[in-house]
Amino acid sequence: MWIVRINMTDQSYKLEEVPERYKNLGGRGLTSTIIYDEVDPTCHPLGPNNKLVFAPGMVTGTAAPTSARVSVGAKSPLTGGIKESNAGAAWSPAVARMRVKAIVVEGMPKEKGEYWVAKLFWDGKQPAVEFSCAGDYVGKNLYDVFPMVFEKFGKRVHIAGIGVAGEYGYANSGIVFDDMKQRPTRYSGRGGLGAVMGSKGLKFIVVDPEGAPGVEIADPEAFKEGARKLREALGEHALTKPKGGLNTYGTAVLINIMNEAGGLPTRNFRSGRFEGAPKIAGEAIFENNKQRLGKELYNHACSPGCVIQCSNSYYAEDGSEIVSCIEYESDWALGANCGIDDLDGVAKLVYWCNAYGTDTIETGDCIAVAMDSGYIPFGDLDGAIALMHEMGKGTPIGRILGGGTEFVAKAFGNPRSPSVKGQGMPAYEPRAVKGIGVTYATTTMGADHTAGYTIAPEIAGVGGKSDPLASEPSKADLSRAFQMTTAFLDSTGHCLFIAFAILDIASGFQGLIEEVNAMYGLNMTIDDAVALGGEILKRERAFNLGAGMTNLHDRLPEFMKYEALPPHNVVNDLPDEVFDAVHGKM
Amino acid sequence: MWIVRINMTDQSYKLEEVPERYKNLGGRGLTSTIIYDEVDPTCHPLGPNNKLVFAPGMVTGTAAPTSARVSVGAKSPLTGGIKESNAGAAWSPAVARMRVKAIVVEGMPKEKGEYWVAKLFWDGKQPAVEFSCAGDYVGKNLYDVFPMVFEKFGKRVHIAGIGVAGEYGYANSGIVFDDMKQRPTRYSGRGGLGAVMGSKGLKFIVVDPEGAPGVEIADPEAFKEGARKLREALGEHALTKPKGGLNTYGTAVLINIMNEAGGLPTRNFRSGRFEGAPKIAGEAIFENNKQRLGKELYNHACSPGCVIQCSNSYYAEDGSEIVSCIEYESDWALGANCGIDDLDGVAKLVYWCNAYGTDTIETGDCIAVAMDSGYIPFGDLDGAIALMHEMGKGTPIGRILGGGTEFVAKAFGNPRSPSVKGQGMPAYEPRAVKGIGVTYATTTMGADHTAGYTIAPEIAGVGGKSDPLASEPSKADLSRAFQMTTAFLDSTGHCLFIAFAILDIASGFQGLIEEVNAMYGLNMTIDDAVALGGEILKRERAFNLGAGMTNLHDRLPEFMKYEALPPHNVVNDLPDEVFDAVHGKM
Repeated sequence: MWIVRINMTDQSYKLEEVPERYKNLGGRGLTSTIIYDEVDPTCHPLGPNNKLVFAPGMVTGTAAPTSARVSVGAKSPLTGGIKESNAGAAWSPAVARMRVKAIVVEGMPKEKGEYWVAKLFWDGKQPAVEFSCAGDYVGKNLYDVFPMVFEKFGKRVHIAGIGVAGEYGYANSGIVFDDMKQRPTRYSGRGGLGAVMGSKGLKFIVVDPEGAPGVEIADPEAFKEGARKLREALGEHALTKPKGGLNTYGTAVLINIMNEAGGLPTRNFRSGRFEGAPKIAGEAIFENNKQRLGKELYNHACSPGCVIQCSNSYYAEDGSEIVSCIEYESDWALGANCGIDDLDGVAKLVYWCNAYGTDTIETGDCIAVAMDSGYIPFGDLDGAIALMHEMGKGTPIGRILGGGTEFVAKAFGNPRSPSVKGQGMPAYEPRAVKGIGVTYATTTMGADHTAGYTIAPEIAGVGGKSDPLASEPSKADLSRAFQMTTAFLDSTGHCLFIAFAILDIASGFQGLIEEVNAMYGLNMTIDDAVALGGEILKRERAFNLGAGMTNLHDRLPEFMKYEALPPHNVVNDLPDEVFDAVHGKM
Repeated sequence: MWIVRINMTDQSYKLEEVPERYKNLGGRGLTSTIIYDEVDPTCHPLGPNNKLVFAPGMVTGTAAPTSARVSVGAKSPLTGGIKESNAGAAWSPAVARMRVKAIVVEGMPKEKGEYWVAKLFWDGKQPAVEFSCAGDYVGKNLYDVFPMVFEKFGKRVHIAGIGVAGEYGYANSGIVFDDMKQRPTRYSGRGGLGAVMGSKGLKFIVVDPEGAPGVEIADPEAFKEGARKLREALGEHALTKPKGGLNTYGTAVLINIMNEAGGLPTRNFRSGRFEGAPKIAGEAIFENNKQRLGKELYNHACSPGCVIQCSNSYYAEDGSEIVSCIEYESDWALGANCGIDDLDGVAKLVYWCNAYGTDTIETGDCIAVAMDSGYIPFGDLDGAIALMHEMGKGTPIGRILGGGTEFVAKAFGNPRSPSVKGQGMPAYEPRAVKGIGVTYATTTMGADHTAGYTIAPEIAGVGGKSDPLASEPSKADLSRAFQMTTAFLDSTGHCLFIAFAILDIASGFQGLIEEVNAMYGLNMTIDDAVALGGEILKRERAFNLGAGMTNLHDRLPEFMKYEALPPHNVVNDLPDEVFDAVHGKM
């Protein structure tokens, strides 16, 4: 097993044997540990001393169901702290099958503005890297560029890279991967990692897995058995089974649910309820597709081996595809949060995020703050699309919007920035769903729902029940437990959505642990796995403290304390001690 | 003695007796103590819970020489920490003579965009405040607005307020005061305090001192004696005496000196030497004026009672005034730091800073970072003037530039931000002058030369001698001593420039202490005064820690560690321990 180090100062690379302490790590556990070990937390995120780390999950590249995630890590230009952002993409198992545990991108070219493609391939005995000029791909729509890359490097390669947003150094830029139809749609979106890649002059890492030996599994039979248990659980659970909630309506099934709960942030977090919610809900996506295509369209996998298959495509009146995929978060960010109830319009906005390489959540938050500041009105779809193109062109207003939620608010002197550690909030109102507020405030990642998805018990009744509106100290325990478990899950390479099934079906969680044990010859229990998650969080938090953060960065924005949110007319009334308890007890 | 509280939520006010603990405080000591006592350090700087405090100095309003400073304090939108920024202006003694120790502006209007004038006057028995609509003054050049205000409120009033920069919420906006010719040229420039005033819907505080009783002095004879000693020292010292360095060439006498020392930051801190320095130096100001006016023009006072008189006016070829005044910092920021060697052009840029209400230092840094990022070329005077107008119009690029040095750098993804705690550096290169670097890094104010002006011993040979290039632990002691003394000086209402005289002439320092003792019936020694300065710093630092800062915020920017500065080819090689020692030992 290797670590591939790519040095962008001189476009060179070297292979390293994976050191003992990294052997059983993968995904987030590995990216965060490498960043913690190697990156000075006080370095400038876009300077020569930051590093960008790609790591497939612990079981990625195997036949484990829904396990093709890749974690990307660095010091974030958005939060100033550590960042791990993961995506499901065929790129990840392709890297894993080359027995590459991680790719570490270091240094930066002396001259700004030159871009390179690094091609990772199997040279017969080991991985190798070839550099070439990326000049042809720079400054362009990724939907135009991806076909050029496949044309040049072959149809079987996979791509990781950046759009113009990463080239411009935007803090809302993501890292893009090709999906199952070679479109630029799978994103490690959050935290501005695209800008880190751009600062290093690296446009794409193209992976050609031809001839790769595949992953090694210590006990293949036990592995199969674990994977079977997990697959069964996924096939049973109402949310994850075929033609279940996610496979039918996609993640946007949550629009109506969150709206009903009064926790769907609307018009830059001015309300928890959006009158246009039904028009942009997952049900509307399904119904519009049905009407426009003349048949029921169930969702597809974002990456190989996924059995949940929650990724949709959305079609125009004329039957042509507008975009794949409209996630709940994207739908909300560019819809409800901007006061836009036009689903075709939201789909177009998602398309342009993909085309330019921005995170849909951060982008929606940024546009909504600009609307909140009076730059364009709420609900102005044409204005929002025009702003997307400003971002695409790198104009001054584009650069403001590209700077991230807090940056936009600062540009307009607006104290209503729905963000934590500079990162814009996702699609759950923390005043109306207290536990997710604790996660937003305390995760090492900046406002991030995936880091400790207490929505499961607070809204979906999965993994227990917890009253979303109750301002209880126990929300700290709830969030901490989810954060620890998630840090482990994010390390396995499995999609977070397996959590729905394994939280409710014990044999599924057991199967997951058996997979990992069989892969690495370990004897972990579930408790060990959660404890490993806790260790990962500790490293991440240590990095953040080393970057100058304190417990005072684990807070929701001030305006949520004094501005009551309709319809429940609730404020953030959790005492600071609750937020501090999350890491205090860990 | 009163504290006047102005509540901008409903445009009301109330008078409070000065509490015992504030009785002997003034200036910075008072603004920082009130902010420390009353403002939640985690509040949003532009939200309803920040407060803006104006306080004349301890001896302001008396006949003490050069003592008409006013301190303005708040939580800074630029640094996120406490801010005190002081200016010399007739407004300050006018307030003091009404026996008003401080004006505390609180709250904010429910609707954004309405602006008010608060008129403070003497109602026969006590101070009173009247509010009126500021609509006529909004969105305009301050050079046009000030005459309108004097027209309406009378020729004897004095003005404190904001330009459009404060209305837009710019973090580079200052608070403006009228000078001796009723021009809008005296600024509490640093830290974005104009935006705080703007967020509160307060455009101007007009002070009409008619009928005010004047300040009270406990022992008038002893006071006179103290003031006499100080005046004598000022009259003797080479820098502060009539037709001395400052009176002849203004503060810009430093341009050639710092250039010679290799410490004049040039082209966004890419060099310590500017080939065009002589063309923009104080000597050139003097010579151009002489040639254009046909006579030697010595400088004038910025405020009543100043005997140093370092404030210049600069005239065009046709004998008309371009601007008053070109300070060293402004000259450098908009000249050398932007690669501009055209003195008339620099004068015009200063004019537009005054007209729009921006801090010249921050503005110069902002333009220089935009140049460094390729937005316009270094040396492009027309481009720089155009950018000033973009700021004046509140366009997107104007808002980027208005956001402050670090903000501009972030907008362009440029890691070369010469700033500490978000605030742009002044006119001394910290790699070439180590002690001032320690001050930049460790002052509670963000990069600020006035907070601990070690340039005196490091460059000017005043108050001892210290090798500017020596990376010695003693620089921490040097900076700390200057920071403590300065916090006291900034509290007295005296201009910092008296330091040149009192550091070299012991009787001058003694006179200063005698003044303060006589005014308040105290028995302070010089050591007591310095200790009081230390107490003020402790409060400021406690506020900053409460706002989420740590010792890691007391650092110079990373690029200064790895980028060697010509001509001495020096980096910041002071170990972190030196920076930490400043507050550690205090």
